[in-house]
Amino acid sequence: MELLSTNVSHGGEHRRYRHHSEALDCDMEFAVYLPPATLRNPGTSVPVLYWLSGLTCTDQNFMQKAGALGRAAELGLAIVCPDTSPRGVNLPGEDDSYDFGSGAGFYITATQDPWRRHYRMYDYVVDELPALVEAELPVSGRRSVSGHSMGGHGALICALKNPGRYASVSAFAPIANPSSCPWGTRAFSGYLGDDREEWADWDATLLVPGAPERLELLIDQGTADDFLDEQLNPDALADACEKVHHPIRLRMHRGYDHSYFFIESFINDHLDHHGRALGLL
Amino acid sequence: MELLSTNVSHGGEHRRYRHHSEALDCDMEFAVYLPPATLRNPGTSVPVLYWLSGLTCTDQNFMQKAGALGRAAELGLAIVCPDTSPRGVNLPGEDDSYDFGSGAGFYITATQDPWRRHYRMYDYVVDELPALVEAELPVSGRRSVSGHSMGGHGALICALKNPGRYASVSAFAPIANPSSCPWGTRAFSGYLGDDREEWADWDATLLVPGAPERLELLIDQGTADDFLDEQLNPDALADACEKVHHPIRLRMHRGYDHSYFFIESFINDHLDHHGRALGLL
Repeated sequence: MELLSTNVSHGGEHRRYRHHSEALDCDMEFAVYLPPATLRNPGTSVPVLYWLSGLTCTDQNFMQKAGALGRAAELGLAIVCPDTSPRGVNLPGEDDSYDFGSGAGFYITATQDPWRRHYRMYDYVVDELPALVEAELPVSGRRSVSGHSMGGHGALICALKNPGRYASVSAFAPIANPSSCPWGTRAFSGYLGDDREEWADWDATLLVPGAPERLELLIDQGTADDFLDEQLNPDALADACEKVHHPIRLRMHRGYDHSYFFIESFINDHLDHHGRALGLL
Repeated sequence: MELLSTNVSHGGEHRRYRHHSEALDCDMEFAVYLPPATLRNPGTSVPVLYWLSGLTCTDQNFMQKAGALGRAAELGLAIVCPDTSPRGVNLPGEDDSYDFGSGAGFYITATQDPWRRHYRMYDYVVDELPALVEAELPVSGRRSVSGHSMGGHGALICALKNPGRYASVSAFAPIANPSSCPWGTRAFSGYLGDDREEWADWDATLLVPGAPERLELLIDQGTADDFLDEQLNPDALADACEKVHHPIRLRMHRGYDHSYFFIESFINDHLDHHGRALGLL
């Protein structure tokens, strides 16, 4: 694991690392925020929030734009931001569109050629990256997960598929029912093939009925989000939750859009939600 | 004034506008944050902080990265971010380097050809832009000014040269003595010519002795800032202040660098400093 840069922020450290990922079979970069507690008390391990970003993003969007580090410092919460896809793997068409290939890994495990060799972001964010950071950095196995848009979808499926693995989950404007929207159907056909039964295992709305753990879903959504009706569809997820009494807190925010101006408005609520579940509040 | 975009944030609105600047003889874009108070109470005018950004920046760096909007919303403080130079004026060499020409207006009034027709950022940020936003937006003539690096220099000279115009001033890692550093000497020779006597009117350290108003200078500076010794030199400014008893609060922050990770760590202190001076706290 190679340290690329360090920036002190709010008394803690924002760091970027590069490492070779076995799951993705390529080199990856990620960012981590280590709160002041980890620097003051060497040997301390703190709980960690995994943040999964949306289409076209890298490990840096959240770190630079969410305004989250101040509250994370206060809570004593680490934040880890992976990239949004494998990088530099030279697959044909990989860089041709913003919603498939590079920057659009969708946090699933591809089964179709040529994608299946590298496009395994689910394995990376659920298993490989946590194992790495828990071994190499002062973060513990007490984990929560959150994300935005494609990354909100990622956070939801990671939690729904892995009972006990995360203390809490939340999302901003998630792609809540990817099997039924243009972004999701494009990605799922490409990475998983045309058998829609395979898709159900990667769609929060379809996972809820059989979820082995009823972890509350905290979801914030802006009403002025340009993608709300065509791509995101939080009502489908809320309907699925209602049928099986899966706890969901869907907060619709009048006038807010899909940008980080929206995320920064409510990120402290999410950090506190995770902080409480992780025993920090 | 053409509205380019609006994002709701922390209950207020971040907006971008385009307008024709007479001072700069070109079209300019700027950003404004209007706190919730202005939306809830039409007809209200709120105090405003002018933020001047550093080399290579636009109106967006501060708005997207500083994490300042939450506190501004609480205080009821508007924030206006101009761009950092004239744009698209097609002067030879304008885009050749990061520290002169585009993105590097230095908040001065150029006297040398070919720059003097357009490179008049001082006139723009001190007079034209405030007159425009005070006429067109719900912001009042109660003003404060702050900035980063080149923009920290800008904030300091705007305040020092205009007694009574700003209720308060602050800066992050300002170019505190531009006449004596590579960035400043390059810019001043190009925009102002080689007569160093002309430069003194645009250099905070040289303005302090004769400043007609002893407004406190709040300055935050990281000790791990790569530009500290060669370009920024806050000690020269502090020495000048000490000689004439000009109040300065220079806070050196161990380990912090020149990035927005530094700014976001202390921006709330600056917003509170301005909020107090503007009667909001």
